[in-house]
Amino acid sequence: MIAIQEKSLALQVRPDFPILHQQIQESPLVYLDSAATSQKPTSVLAALQDYYEQDNANVHRGVHTLSGRATDAYEGARDKVAAFVNAASRQEIVYTRNASEGINLVAYSWGMNNLKAGDEVILTVMEHHSNLIPWQWVAQKTGAVLKFVELDENQAFDLEQFKTLINDRTKLVGVVHVSNTLGCINPVEEIVVIAHQYDAKVLIDACQSVPHMPIDVQKIDCDWLVASGHKMCAPTGIGFLYGKLDLLRSMPPFLGGGEMIADVFLDHATYADLPHKFEAGTPAIGEAVGLGAAVDYLTQIGMDKIHAYEAELTAYLFKRLREIPEVQIYGPQPHADGTGRAALASFTAGDVHPHDLSTILDQAGVAIRAGHHCTQPLHRHLKVSSTARASLYFYNTREEIDAFINSLKEAVEFFSSIFG
Amino acid sequence: MIAIQEKSLALQVRPDFPILHQQIQESPLVYLDSAATSQKPTSVLAALQDYYEQDNANVHRGVHTLSGRATDAYEGARDKVAAFVNAASRQEIVYTRNASEGINLVAYSWGMNNLKAGDEVILTVMEHHSNLIPWQWVAQKTGAVLKFVELDENQAFDLEQFKTLINDRTKLVGVVHVSNTLGCINPVEEIVVIAHQYDAKVLIDACQSVPHMPIDVQKIDCDWLVASGHKMCAPTGIGFLYGKLDLLRSMPPFLGGGEMIADVFLDHATYADLPHKFEAGTPAIGEAVGLGAAVDYLTQIGMDKIHAYEAELTAYLFKRLREIPEVQIYGPQPHADGTGRAALASFTAGDVHPHDLSTILDQAGVAIRAGHHCTQPLHRHLKVSSTARASLYFYNTREEIDAFINSLKEAVEFFSSIFG
Repeated sequence: MIAIQEKSLALQVRPDFPILHQQIQESPLVYLDSAATSQKPTSVLAALQDYYEQDNANVHRGVHTLSGRATDAYEGARDKVAAFVNAASRQEIVYTRNASEGINLVAYSWGMNNLKAGDEVILTVMEHHSNLIPWQWVAQKTGAVLKFVELDENQAFDLEQFKTLINDRTKLVGVVHVSNTLGCINPVEEIVVIAHQYDAKVLIDACQSVPHMPIDVQKIDCDWLVASGHKMCAPTGIGFLYGKLDLLRSMPPFLGGGEMIADVFLDHATYADLPHKFEAGTPAIGEAVGLGAAVDYLTQIGMDKIHAYEAELTAYLFKRLREIPEVQIYGPQPHADGTGRAALASFTAGDVHPHDLSTILDQAGVAIRAGHHCTQPLHRHLKVSSTARASLYFYNTREEIDAFINSLKEAVEFFSSIFG
Repeated sequence: MIAIQEKSLALQVRPDFPILHQQIQESPLVYLDSAATSQKPTSVLAALQDYYEQDNANVHRGVHTLSGRATDAYEGARDKVAAFVNAASRQEIVYTRNASEGINLVAYSWGMNNLKAGDEVILTVMEHHSNLIPWQWVAQKTGAVLKFVELDENQAFDLEQFKTLINDRTKLVGVVHVSNTLGCINPVEEIVVIAHQYDAKVLIDACQSVPHMPIDVQKIDCDWLVASGHKMCAPTGIGFLYGKLDLLRSMPPFLGGGEMIADVFLDHATYADLPHKFEAGTPAIGEAVGLGAAVDYLTQIGMDKIHAYEAELTAYLFKRLREIPEVQIYGPQPHADGTGRAALASFTAGDVHPHDLSTILDQAGVAIRAGHHCTQPLHRHLKVSSTARASLYFYNTREEIDAFINSLKEAVEFFSSIFG
């Protein structure tokens, strides 16, 4: 028999993603913007469709057949998410619209009620705006002080500086697991060990890690962790907050309404047990079902396999980007095998404005992002107004990286010929 | 030629709702729980599918083709919603997950910052928990006082009592437009005129009116109005808050994160213009697109036509329910032509527990709700622990009402034979 080389993961899964098989401006779409949002496999779309065509009803409140089915589907998806991140209990998973809402929930419910003047919150200069703005508000209301971990010589989390910032006044450390701009993978387990020595809580923004690598919240031992469904093959409008059970129990509710109550009187109310205490009103039922299907899909492939394949792609992406002398990449370099950082590259190319780059590349069907990627303070820190960003997922191929690099080279040459 | 009677609206539209064509327990499904959530037409499901299979990308942040298409779809849906309720500006429409979130937004952003000890908020005893719990919290934090309009002799909004409650200390009137339990249609235009004489703002919970009748926010002249998409043929996970432009402008942001910012520094930030100031993080993009398709669908049928057809059904429903002597219906009676109240009936049947009724009816494929319908204080006011509720939408038929009544009669007879 002739040995047949195994197809790459991307070639195996691409039939599952209808959107990828289209022409943009007469070229095949090359979607390199998965850090902004991922595409959705047919199994997720089918789960949505099936839910609405067969089972749709409001949850928890009804005894009829459809309501029972809808409740089972909605709560069954919660079990899947809990297993996916290895939560100790399904009650530790609270559905939110997105990661931002999860962080706001923690800021309003825990931050506003537990922090006081002189308390300190440690964030980093690389935080997404979603893990910065809510804490600015908490600081303004409570008098707590925000402190920021900066970057080490590799443009990654400066662990040594972190150790100098933390002290007995530190009540919270809020840190992004994988930077959406730098691509660095922050040492969250070490951060948690150190923070807990000072009795500080740790909130992890895991938007860019949960979709790309195995995550074990018990191993990380974080107090809270947030993620967005739409970045992990699920529909928009759904995300989740993980929190340790006792901690979530100790927090007052955030949004009020149906579903989150036990007994309601005109002048006061008592509240439901977890996780419903934090889920007011009719929830995003179809979206939760879609998130469950996304978790099934990712689990079936295997997060280890996804992470390994993305490392291969990362190695190749960086190898090819280094061919273009004008290109400056931000964040740490990958190891030789592509591990050690996320499968994305934020970069500038000489004096070419990133928006112009993205516009030119779009003409060739290549979708990359340009701007501040919701990390304006980081861009100020890097002394650059904006960057271009190519971000990969397991459905991307080496051939797509080639198409991107070829277009990028042409764009850089084009602008050099005009302005050079 | 032989005159052919025009098919009822329901018979015209039922092919659009795949979920309705199924057997439950060997009987055809009779879905009478649309006040909890509505079913979705194929055009809405197709819009969702098309969005995810062709256009999905993150909005506002990108310059590539898919991002442009996604942004156009997301913002185009906002235009549709604005037109649907006749908002003066598209900037007056803020997407939320559901109506509950819209009310919480107003309570946190406006209530917490504008009310003070001694200020008064007038609600009603028939409010859904979602328009009660957030104001309990505002009252607890600010010292504002909650007052409640009770029911008149028809079990509807007591306008005369309202006039005795309102005074110069009243800062807000929060009222449900159509009660999800009583089915009464509250006189929101008169309420607004009176409230504005005292410079009080008016917040309308329009969850049960927007899906069923033409709504003109400029004619009502309310300050805020909230509705849920899932009750008006749209997917779950999307709703909207309408607010007058100057008022929304004056309100601080509620949730912090991406999308809602202008310039962000480590210690402070400035915020985006409306409506984005209130939409933090990646929004429910697909769901908004689905809401736009739902608005298209309802508009194509015509809200006047839907309202008129539902009145016919209401007249028939009440006529048939009156055949069962054990049945007591709550809320006002409809006029002879079925107008004057919503197309739903909350009722008890002698000593039979509503949950038992719902369970028995489910055996015959009839889906009705049993419980407190998120109006526990109203149920206490009515001195009844729970009610059964049959709620209709324009896809329901007279034959379905017959099936419901037949099952209800059998159930009542069954329980009478056991307990009577």
